[in-house]
Amino acid sequence: MKKLINAPEDVVREELEGLALAHAGMVRVSLDPYMVVRADAPVLGKVALVSGGGSGHEPMHGGFVGAGMLDAACPGEVFTSPTPDQILAATKAVDGGAGVLHIVKNYTGDILNFEMAAELAREEGIEVEAVVVADDVAVRDSLYTAGRRGVGATVLAEKLCGAAAAEGRPLKEVADVCRHVNDFARSMGMALTSCVTPSAGRPTFDLGEDEMEIGIGIHGEPGRERMKVAPADDIVALLAGPVVEDLPFRAGDSVLAFVNGLGGTPLIELYIVYRELHRFLAGRGILVGRNLVGSYITSLEMAGCSITLLKLDDELARLWDAPVVTPGLRWGA
Amino acid sequence: MKKLINAPEDVVREELEGLALAHAGMVRVSLDPYMVVRADAPVLGKVALVSGGGSGHEPMHGGFVGAGMLDAACPGEVFTSPTPDQILAATKAVDGGAGVLHIVKNYTGDILNFEMAAELAREEGIEVEAVVVADDVAVRDSLYTAGRRGVGATVLAEKLCGAAAAEGRPLKEVADVCRHVNDFARSMGMALTSCVTPSAGRPTFDLGEDEMEIGIGIHGEPGRERMKVAPADDIVALLAGPVVEDLPFRAGDSVLAFVNGLGGTPLIELYIVYRELHRFLAGRGILVGRNLVGSYITSLEMAGCSITLLKLDDELARLWDAPVVTPGLRWGA
Repeated sequence: MKKLINAPEDVVREELEGLALAHAGMVRVSLDPYMVVRADAPVLGKVALVSGGGSGHEPMHGGFVGAGMLDAACPGEVFTSPTPDQILAATKAVDGGAGVLHIVKNYTGDILNFEMAAELAREEGIEVEAVVVADDVAVRDSLYTAGRRGVGATVLAEKLCGAAAAEGRPLKEVADVCRHVNDFARSMGMALTSCVTPSAGRPTFDLGEDEMEIGIGIHGEPGRERMKVAPADDIVALLAGPVVEDLPFRAGDSVLAFVNGLGGTPLIELYIVYRELHRFLAGRGILVGRNLVGSYITSLEMAGCSITLLKLDDELARLWDAPVVTPGLRWGA
Repeated sequence: MKKLINAPEDVVREELEGLALAHAGMVRVSLDPYMVVRADAPVLGKVALVSGGGSGHEPMHGGFVGAGMLDAACPGEVFTSPTPDQILAATKAVDGGAGVLHIVKNYTGDILNFEMAAELAREEGIEVEAVVVADDVAVRDSLYTAGRRGVGATVLAEKLCGAAAAEGRPLKEVADVCRHVNDFARSMGMALTSCVTPSAGRPTFDLGEDEMEIGIGIHGEPGRERMKVAPADDIVALLAGPVVEDLPFRAGDSVLAFVNGLGGTPLIELYIVYRELHRFLAGRGILVGRNLVGSYITSLEMAGCSITLLKLDDELARLWDAPVVTPGLRWGA
């Protein structure tokens, strides 16, 4: 295992300490339990957004805390769900009196622990809604998931709901934005190499020198198919084809096209993927209205990418363009 | 070789096409010769900034074109200098009548070709100044370099000079900012793995499963020492020690601390490095006034990091905070 880490058991704590030191103006970090909280939380009268999940997907979620996006993130250990206590603490820390939205990726552990935390928060008089994101079309049911896995659409939901909350909209409407994003976004990913969890110290799965895994999960869960490595343009077709067909996205649709790196893939490759995705969509009459290219929901050092498409309307485009000031995503302010 | 590419000879063109499609509002891309130019160039009356160099270091330089940073970037093929014609074309495309600053990393091919382009531009009546960045303390003379290599300080110089130019300062003063950054910045990097150029298709250098290279260059040029892999905290000391001693940075100094990923290193690891760098500097009485953590000057998919320190004063801090709107670096607007 070659990583820039110290002891495997200290990875998450040390990463959070680094995040706190680097972005003191945006976030505060608690180490017991682990929480990344907006520096000026709670924002009175604003719906608060809380997300979380296992670590290893940085910048998601801790890097998305700040004005115009999340109010708090609850990082678990690497690829491990946060605990109900932790989620409850974050919910209480950011509640500004207008209720709290939990944005939950569809992994069974996350769902159970967020549900329990929501119950506990409600008992303390905090209004909580939860929306589960499940956008990965690769497989139905997976290693840690019943139904579809929650992947790239989570990044988009956090940004879009953050903008809606910043406008002062009520909890029900902010939750509706999240449900809408989940309804109209689809994703699929692929890996050229495995990730290596710090505690295991060896690849999560074995992939031959000439192989790739299509439909990979962000914890290395099996995908649809293992194949010989192929040119980037073919890989785009293998990912974007099922994504487009699933919703389906149709000629005349405008989309937000998100090309995501899984942690070990350099930007030069992501732009090559984006180029072909744009052509692929244009060939089907689908217009790219907005885009995001970079490594935003990762799987440690896994080499590979994922493609997420979200059907855009004027309202979503407006929310996307709204200012956001977080360690991982920033524009307009 | 496992990469998200098509034919190796198409990598740079396809990456540039992707960049252009993704960021049409910020940049225009020319394919003959390769140029990334600010969408609203030339900006009349503003000093224009041109940089460039081999591709494979993305987002540098093409991703740093936009308001508050570069006016144009000239990408060569992977790890190959841009040609004089190409640099001349970029210089002419962005000249707004107030002169053009060439920011050149210290590699012999880059220097020669930028010098020739500057001569040609001057013959056409364009005022050109050039500043060479040479901040890498690892080795004196290297595979492609006489003297020190130009690395991380280039990113900082492009941002800081971009801010000075945006304020309407004259060419001489903008060039002075660049010289100042070069005088007061120092860097050093390390690799856990080699990069693989698309044309070669195999690792540029061999590194054992338990080895790392301290002082690596951004094209895989040899560093100071090959060692057994070590904990992140020890690696920080191996990089930051020589950097601090070289200027030297002293107790009471305020610095901009830049932790850079080389392309294959995930953000979770960079924050662990940043945490220790902050502690290392604090232990020497050096205050981190500003910071940058992410992959900004890369070496294809190389796993590893570099550390750059720039001695800050109020003026540089102010220029750093000024708005910047580029594909790769964005804040304040």
